[in-house]
Amino acid sequence: MKPDDLQPSPGWTLSRRAGRMTSSAIRDLLKITEQPGIISFAGGLPSPLTFPVEAFRAACEKVLREDGRSALQYAASEGYAPLREAVAALLPWKVDPAQVLITTGSQQGLDLVAKVLVDQDSRVLVETPTYLGALQAFAPMEPQVVGIASDDEGVDIADLARRRGDARFLYVLPNFQNPTGRTMTEGRRQALVQTARELALPLVEDNPYGDLWFDAPPPAPLAARYPQGTIYLGSFSKVLAPGLRLGYLVAPPAVASKLVLAKQAADLHSPSFNQRLVAEVLRDGFLERHVPTIRTLYRDQRDAMLEALAREMHGLDLRWNAPAGGMFLWARLPAGIDAARLLPRAVARGVAFVPGAAFYAGEADARTLRLSFVTASREQIAAGIAALAATIRENPRP
Amino acid sequence: MKPDDLQPSPGWTLSRRAGRMTSSAIRDLLKITEQPGIISFAGGLPSPLTFPVEAFRAACEKVLREDGRSALQYAASEGYAPLREAVAALLPWKVDPAQVLITTGSQQGLDLVAKVLVDQDSRVLVETPTYLGALQAFAPMEPQVVGIASDDEGVDIADLARRRGDARFLYVLPNFQNPTGRTMTEGRRQALVQTARELALPLVEDNPYGDLWFDAPPPAPLAARYPQGTIYLGSFSKVLAPGLRLGYLVAPPAVASKLVLAKQAADLHSPSFNQRLVAEVLRDGFLERHVPTIRTLYRDQRDAMLEALAREMHGLDLRWNAPAGGMFLWARLPAGIDAARLLPRAVARGVAFVPGAAFYAGEADARTLRLSFVTASREQIAAGIAALAATIRENPRP
Repeated sequence: MKPDDLQPSPGWTLSRRAGRMTSSAIRDLLKITEQPGIISFAGGLPSPLTFPVEAFRAACEKVLREDGRSALQYAASEGYAPLREAVAALLPWKVDPAQVLITTGSQQGLDLVAKVLVDQDSRVLVETPTYLGALQAFAPMEPQVVGIASDDEGVDIADLARRRGDARFLYVLPNFQNPTGRTMTEGRRQALVQTARELALPLVEDNPYGDLWFDAPPPAPLAARYPQGTIYLGSFSKVLAPGLRLGYLVAPPAVASKLVLAKQAADLHSPSFNQRLVAEVLRDGFLERHVPTIRTLYRDQRDAMLEALAREMHGLDLRWNAPAGGMFLWARLPAGIDAARLLPRAVARGVAFVPGAAFYAGEADARTLRLSFVTASREQIAAGIAALAATIRENPRP
Repeated sequence: MKPDDLQPSPGWTLSRRAGRMTSSAIRDLLKITEQPGIISFAGGLPSPLTFPVEAFRAACEKVLREDGRSALQYAASEGYAPLREAVAALLPWKVDPAQVLITTGSQQGLDLVAKVLVDQDSRVLVETPTYLGALQAFAPMEPQVVGIASDDEGVDIADLARRRGDARFLYVLPNFQNPTGRTMTEGRRQALVQTARELALPLVEDNPYGDLWFDAPPPAPLAARYPQGTIYLGSFSKVLAPGLRLGYLVAPPAVASKLVLAKQAADLHSPSFNQRLVAEVLRDGFLERHVPTIRTLYRDQRDAMLEALAREMHGLDLRWNAPAGGMFLWARLPAGIDAARLLPRAVARGVAFVPGAAFYAGEADARTLRLSFVTASREQIAAGIAALAATIRENPRP
């Protein structure tokens, strides 16, 4: 390779959106957390202990033996019909399989939603804070993203009404939210749907964690209450395995037909082999036996983290919540401590977390941080929270 | 479900691009070709006889046994390192694995290229005719697509220079093109690269079929001659199987870094399980043993189609080419016969093809049609071409 081959020629002109794309702060921060020996509460990954490897081995063997050539061929953009039917049957409201679109992870669902609903400078509403991956998926369509005030029960309805404007939709993650772990209450869901109807505001409801409840199922989805006004996104990443990249969305018919066309243009279809594997694994009520084992593991680790926080943070002005499911706990540092500046000190003591600032569409609360409790063991959680407490204690107040 | 749940609520506002999305003419036409008993030359699918099902069974078993939990976990957006290294090693010029991005089929590569290089109304140049899927992938970014005159040797260099304007790139499929089956000659490649350098015109080179040569390999890729000015797209869909949805792209470093960010926003990463399967199947030179069997099958069927055309089209003013590889043959009907209008009559006689008009960015040649020779047997090819000849003979001239 000649030296000048390493430089792009002068003719390359990047799109405006590409000029704005930068590596996420989280991505860069996470690199420092990947050092060996670090106890990481920073990841967004499910515990690999929950992956049903044996079930996938059996499914691979069966699918390739019975239907190998079809499973390896091109297929319909909408998805594999038996999987669409299985998804419709899993959902807690009446869904026509024709409205189900299989996506390459629910991240792709967010990309397709943005393509079909967002023009340059379109207004898009999100919670405060919100899922960073959604902000990244929407960004290429160049929306104006507006954060709606939110509290422990969900979005603030009065602020939503005030700031609705000509927004194309409100993006909301009601169950065990990433990053906060919070769950929208029944009362807030009712108020949100009523207000959305009054304001003619479409909803995009993201529900990757809803099955991971610890004590009782969360309230019914928004889509079950307002199907004609809601696009619902689901995922197999947290209940089976993320490495297959399979999610789905359910949309009102007129929107669903456009989403299918956007899907076809994006990657023709999601892997037919993977779709058959998941359809095979789902047979005979597998999730009903498998998901409770994930709940038990994650609940136990959440309990360990709550116990460790109560034990170690005594006397510190650290606040945290107690998520009723999912993978994440949200905490707020004492006044004057910036989570991003605390992180390198914590890593030096062997523990990592994600500073919360990256999850805000508008002004960030720099004192917040996200702690995942699903990939560390009880012992690691105890040691990691102790190290975090020591880091906060030694932190010089400004 | 209440009746009004079937209609979207009044609040939905589609993006401008979604308003322009319509189901492709081909997609609608293909539905009529899927009737049982039809001999179809219309598909764009590889022959499922070529899929190495046993190799994938062995790979599934090995990957899940040795590395199951990692294979089912989230992974890096760039792709699985051993697969990126394998891709770099397969390519006939010096490629740094850091420049290789694994994509969810090469269709996704086209989506990412458009996101990173195309703004609304950006000028994009394509061959005449060109791959329909590329037009669909570029469309959401709302380019102005300009068809460059092309002949049997490839794009017309003089027309390219005349119409370069401020185009962001030229999209070109030099080997056994979809839809025409034609291959850009060595002389035209040299002239194109020289002109692209002079005009500072980036190239997007799509090469899904290059390995499927029948007698001799095609000339070296454009990317091998002009790496700093070319994004190269490749695919495992035609040499292994499309149902895994794995392709790749190679880009100059400054562009590659933006493509990775666009990839992360689009679907986080391509399925880690599938990437490990393909990396496993590729070991020990599998393609060197496997691809020749595809070439032999497809060459035999191309020969069958050429023989049938010579035999059956005698006395008709039908012109066709003799592709040196790939999956498609291109033909032009006698004056006054429109391929789209001929299709229903052909289907009534039991044979289907794709009218060529859909493949033109500008004014279409309605007399053209695309014939796939890879999924029909020699006997079906003979019968299908005879039926097509009979259809043309009975067709009333205007």
